[in-house]
Amino acid sequence: MIKQRVKKIQKALQRRNLDAVLITEPHNRRYLSGYTATDHGIQETTGVLLIPKKGKPWLLTDSRFVLQAEEEAQGFTVELYKKGLYALLKKLLPALNVRRLGFESHYFLHSSAGKLEEMAEKIKVELVPLLDLVERMRMIKTEEEIQQIKKSVLLNEQVFQSVHKTLAPGMTELEIALALEQTMRKMGAEGPSFETIVAFGSNAAKPHAVPTNRVLQDGEIVLVDMGLVLQGYCSDMTRTFVVGKPKKKFIQRLRVVRKAQLAGIKAIRAGALCRQVDQAARKVIADAGYGDFFGHSLGHGVGLAVHESPGLGPRNRKKLQAGMIVTIEPGIYLPNWGGIRLENMAVVREEDCEVLNQDTTGLDL
Amino acid sequence: MIKQRVKKIQKALQRRNLDAVLITEPHNRRYLSGYTATDHGIQETTGVLLIPKKGKPWLLTDSRFVLQAEEEAQGFTVELYKKGLYALLKKLLPALNVRRLGFESHYFLHSSAGKLEEMAEKIKVELVPLLDLVERMRMIKTEEEIQQIKKSVLLNEQVFQSVHKTLAPGMTELEIALALEQTMRKMGAEGPSFETIVAFGSNAAKPHAVPTNRVLQDGEIVLVDMGLVLQGYCSDMTRTFVVGKPKKKFIQRLRVVRKAQLAGIKAIRAGALCRQVDQAARKVIADAGYGDFFGHSLGHGVGLAVHESPGLGPRNRKKLQAGMIVTIEPGIYLPNWGGIRLENMAVVREEDCEVLNQDTTGLDL
Repeated sequence: MIKQRVKKIQKALQRRNLDAVLITEPHNRRYLSGYTATDHGIQETTGVLLIPKKGKPWLLTDSRFVLQAEEEAQGFTVELYKKGLYALLKKLLPALNVRRLGFESHYFLHSSAGKLEEMAEKIKVELVPLLDLVERMRMIKTEEEIQQIKKSVLLNEQVFQSVHKTLAPGMTELEIALALEQTMRKMGAEGPSFETIVAFGSNAAKPHAVPTNRVLQDGEIVLVDMGLVLQGYCSDMTRTFVVGKPKKKFIQRLRVVRKAQLAGIKAIRAGALCRQVDQAARKVIADAGYGDFFGHSLGHGVGLAVHESPGLGPRNRKKLQAGMIVTIEPGIYLPNWGGIRLENMAVVREEDCEVLNQDTTGLDL
Repeated sequence: MIKQRVKKIQKALQRRNLDAVLITEPHNRRYLSGYTATDHGIQETTGVLLIPKKGKPWLLTDSRFVLQAEEEAQGFTVELYKKGLYALLKKLLPALNVRRLGFESHYFLHSSAGKLEEMAEKIKVELVPLLDLVERMRMIKTEEEIQQIKKSVLLNEQVFQSVHKTLAPGMTELEIALALEQTMRKMGAEGPSFETIVAFGSNAAKPHAVPTNRVLQDGEIVLVDMGLVLQGYCSDMTRTFVVGKPKKKFIQRLRVVRKAQLAGIKAIRAGALCRQVDQAARKVIADAGYGDFFGHSLGHGVGLAVHESPGLGPRNRKKLQAGMIVTIEPGIYLPNWGGIRLENMAVVREEDCEVLNQDTTGLDL
């Protein structure tokens, strides 16, 4: 699988008249090499791929990661940069006859690009900024990847259900978030795919609430947005429900959000514009009078990264393609009152889409 | 405290003839505003600060974070960017009379810089890349910050000790790492400051080993590198020990590493060069014949970020200053055999340094 991916990138390099590409984005690196090390932010990389248009690809890293790189990156030549990446490239690029080098403009710091340019000028290498060479490939999932993501979604639901059963007034947001993340790991996930959101009552009015010591009251809204990583692949799901007896207003608004979600799902098929899908869901919320209280996009792609292309936003004119996996997550957020968001994942198919979630907790009250 | 920090930055702007600065680095943002939201990588910011050389500073964010920003960033004007950051800046910069704008070159993507430049050109704003405007301030800790970091270090040790007591053959690396991270959160930490490392036997030969399902054998090496975040401030500590009876070779090598650590600690004082401190420790390891097996730097700064300036590396000619906090973490890594690393934290003082750790588990066998 990895071998085919590298070959596909090499073909793309040949088409673009590039002699090699430097891969710095960590998900792209894992996708193309199988090397799983995670970076400590963009300023501390655990390695960079150098893929020439032909022949064996390279993984450049430092002494802390060389053993792991050799174990994981099959088919790659692992090379140590003792005096830094640019000093190594200065030797390696001429040896590989590289005259035009692509780099990932969307994952390269402005300050690092300065160093790269300085080095490239000395050895007369032309730099070509790229924006989505690998992302474009990653966006379309193979059936094998879709199966991986399905497993991730199902495990995420199992984790949710096992914790959902235990919820009771008196628990705190932080406690529940912690229980969810612990259960993820116990059940075999690499970890959460993002910081788990658990928000009660008015806290749920913040779409990205951070769990606090707030104590759950009987009848209060609970919004849980959670995802996990399983063998590299992410899941992402939001449920909003009430512990105790829900108020009428809650049920009414929940139905609006669910209706919006179903309208979004119905609009998904290969060839549909991303913004059309967003619009289909947004219209339901606007028609119900909550248009001003749904500020974010309807959804986003999911794969090795929990947020990737395509974005289902009101301004994205791109077309959906079969094999893309997206979230559908409309919401209503009312300061002081609270918020409701429902999020499922679906694979885009030629004629429609396939929803990956089985869990229906709180979806249809 | 925050107010004073903003004033200090404003003075620095005036000195550099800048009308404003854009703060994108998340720790810098928290340091200057009190806003605690965490970004989902550099490609998904939860907000940007715009600090003019005079007057009220701004926090620019999107609809998901506006409530949290208003709660936390006291003294800031919170402004929503509905059509993206650059569209908002295009209006805001002329209104604030900004002609020269600084930005954080070391935390600005090459592709985003392209958009910033395009916008700036249209409104005739000159861009000035900065490298460490805020980091330079953050590097020197106030006594108040030192107290915060001490609390973080002590809590980290308590977590380690409470899990250390329970260790026994048959446990896995992953199990122990999980127990450590759960205990951190239970005892009040925001979370780990980096992914906890637990490595047994030969796995410990990887300085940045990832915990696996490997089962602990009696008499095997255990390397634990762990840190937590407490009210924003990080700790970082490494212990290497044996569960059961240690072999002679282990004790002998542990003593070499401990001796190297003590030599490093002894070399720390205001005015010492970073590389001198590295050299003091490195010499002990080299003299014992392990020079080729200590590939990384001796240490790094710690504060709001777990890795920050100054780096105690063999090539850093900068001088230590009182109030800096650094790690001292020499190691020996022998493929197949395993590895030993010991890491403590210390505050640089005028005449010497103050070690922040109390825990001595495994330090002096």
